Formats: sequence, structure tokens, C-alpha cells
Amino acid sequence: MFIQIEIQTRAKVDLIDITDRIRQAVAESGIGEGVCYLFCPHTTAGIVLNENWDPTVEKDLSMVLDHMVPETMPYRHAEGNAPSHVKSVLVGMDHFIFVHNHTLQLGQWQGVFFADFDGPRRRRVWIRVIKDQDSG
Amino acid sequence: MFIQIEIQTRAKVDLIDITDRIRQAVAESGIGEGVCYLFCPHTTAGIVLNENWDPTVEKDLSMVLDHMVPETMPYRHAEGNAPSHVKSVLVGMDHFIFVHNHTLQLGQWQGVFFADFDGPRRRRVWIRVIKDQDSG
Amino acid sequence: MFIQIEIQTRAKVDLIDITDRIRQAVAESGIGEGVCYLFCPHTTAGIVLNENWDPTVEKDLSMVLDHMVPETMPYRHAEGNAPSHVKSVLVGMDHFIFVHNHTLQLGQWQGVFFADFDGPRRRRVWIRVIKDQDSG
Repeated sequence: MFIQIEIQTRAKVDLIDITDRIRQAVAESGIGEGVCYLFCPHTTAGIVLNENWDPTVEKDLSMVLDHMVPETMPYRHAEGNAPSHVKSVLVGMDHFIFVHNHTLQLGQWQGVFFADFDGPRRRRVWIRVIKDQDSG
Repeated sequence: MFIQIEIQTRAKVDLIDITDRIRQAVAESGIGEGVCYLFCPHTTAGIVLNENWDPTVEKDLSMVLDHMVPETMPYRHAEGNAPSHVKSVLVGMDHFIFVHNHTLQLGQWQGVFFADFDGPRRRRVWIRVIKDQDSG
Repeated sequence: MFIQIEIQTRAKVDLIDITDRIRQAVAESGIGEGVCYLFCPHTTAGIVLNENWDPTVEKDLSMVLDHMVPETMPYRHAEGNAPSHVKSVLVGMDHFIFVHNHTLQLGQWQGVFFADFDGPRRRRVWIRVIKDQDSG
């Protein structure tokens, strides 16, 4: 199953919890055992797996990324969003999560965030859920 | 096949070589051609693919991560482990390795480490080995 | 399908666009729906998904990685390439891209780069394209 979800980000840097939308995609797939793949088709955004219980964690991540990838370096890319490209490479655009017993297998504190580093924009995430043919 | 291995880390920051345990899981799966998926269900730990021949490489990685993600920034997350969350995002919680001829396909110098950034704790890694149905 | 491509890098740090070679591997696989997996079997190189339209983006990425992983820290690894190991962990050695309608599914501005951080060398990338048995 190959589906696309849309996400409207609200700020230049914005992490949006999409865990429930991924769970819904897994439920719709009807697949009991397999892998759920997530792919971000943008070059200035990414997907983050991390704690979604305490919202300060995402603010801290954003602060550290700004420290690591300063806005003021002598970037050559003319569009002014070079740091956003680098941040997306660091967090990753492609992630997977197991499906077991028809359920997305996340750790107790884990959630899935769409991370925009050059918003606000209308963004997309592509999802594939693939069945493990040998596990039923 | 969906299995879980347990790892007891020994320090706040601890990289433990789990390559042999992954090889064993692949052998137990009986799968000759496919993909071995690794997932860390924690938010302050991750999985690292890198050199496991020279143990100084893991110490250098730990030192650079401390440089990139300083302990002393104005973090908001109250539990005091905000840097550990960020480090886990940077190294990644989900990785895969090919299985070919019933063997885990790593490069000559590559190994798999479980990386705890907020230990010592009892940790888990989830493993799925999925067969490529078209390659036998 | 499990294939290997070879890449000759030309400098210490060198990002080479391999998008067309990945597309070719997908075409040769004959697979219409599935996932294309990429794996770098080296410990001082990696694979980057990001913009391949403007070549300044790769130069900016390289500059920021040098900022994040300085050459002059007190590294213990004796071969002098410790920063290259860390950079490979940060960009990742394992990535996947969806295959849909016999086509590699990249975003409008996305491409795939082989990133050498300790070249020039003869390098390899391993590719598997696996069919989604339920999507034809």
C-alpha cells in the first residue's frame, strides 16, 4: 500500500506529531505483520522519531540543531535556506517502524514527528506498509 | 521473524557491539536472501553502524557528539537528559542491513553498536528479518 | 535483486550524484511496486538524500559537517580519519526509496549522493530492490 498524507506546517521550524496518522495508515492497510516505511519527499524537512510525551523535547532538538548548523555561516546556496537542507540530512528523510499484531510498534515514549525546517508550507509524507509474507 | 534482544549498558554513554547477536538472529531466521531490520524502542539511545575493529572509533564518536550537543545549553526538558534525546536522533534508531547467502552483509570494517546515551539501563533492540520472496 | 555499483571518488571529501545509477538498477529489476534499499559498506563514507539541482547545497553540507566535526579535536583513532567516521554516522549508511509505477519515487528536488569523507578511493554501494508482493 502506497499512500500520501498532507501536513500544513505553521512556522519556519515546526515539528508536528503525526503518530496517529501513521497508526491510521497501518490500520487501513489491514497488514498484521510487516514494516511501515515513511519517506519525506522534501529537501528542507525530515522525519524524527523521538519522545512525544513532553513537548519540550522537540524545542530542545530545534535549539541544538540551530547550534550545530548556524544561520550565519558563509553558505553559497542562494535561496537562504542552506541550514534547512543540512538539518533535514541530519534527522533523516527515510524511517521505518515495525508492524506486529496489526499495531505500529513504537517504544513507550516514542512518537513520529514531521520536522519542517523551512516552513510554513504544505508538506507531504509518503507511507508504504509491506507485509511480511512469512509471518501471516 | 520478530525477535527482541536485551542489552545491559554499563555507563551513562556506552556503545556495545551487538554484531554477533544480529548475525545469530539472521542464522536463526533461516532466511537466505532479504533484509535484516533493527529498531531501538528507546528515545535516549540509538543504533550505530561503524567501524568495530578499533575501539577508539567509538570513543571519538562519543567525544564529537558531546561537542555537537553540549550538556550546558538552556534545555527545557526537565529530566536532565535532553542531550541524550538529541544524540539518539542524530545516530538513528532504525537501521537495516542486507542478508545475502544466509549472511549479514557488512563491509570489511563495519559492525553494529547499541549506543546508550542515558545509561546504565536494561535496553532492548527489536529485529525483523524479512525474506526477499523473489530471490529464494 | 542484489547488485553492487562502483564509484571512484576524486577528493578527500566528495559527493557524487548517483541518482541515475539507482534509477537504472530499479529499471533492471523489473519491479513495479516495492522498495529500493541502498547500503554503503564503508565506515568513512555514507549516502545522502538531498537537493541535487543546485550544486552549492553539497558544498554547504560539507562546510557544516566540518564545523560540527572539527579536524582538530583530540581524537584517539590513530589513522587520522576519525572525523570521517563520525560524518558517515551522521549522514547514514543505509537509506531506502520507494518504487511506484516502475519509477524511483523521489521528491521534485531530491537526488541521491554517495558521500566520501576519506577519499579519493574506489567505493561501492549495494542495492536491493524488493517487490511488494501485494501491490503487483
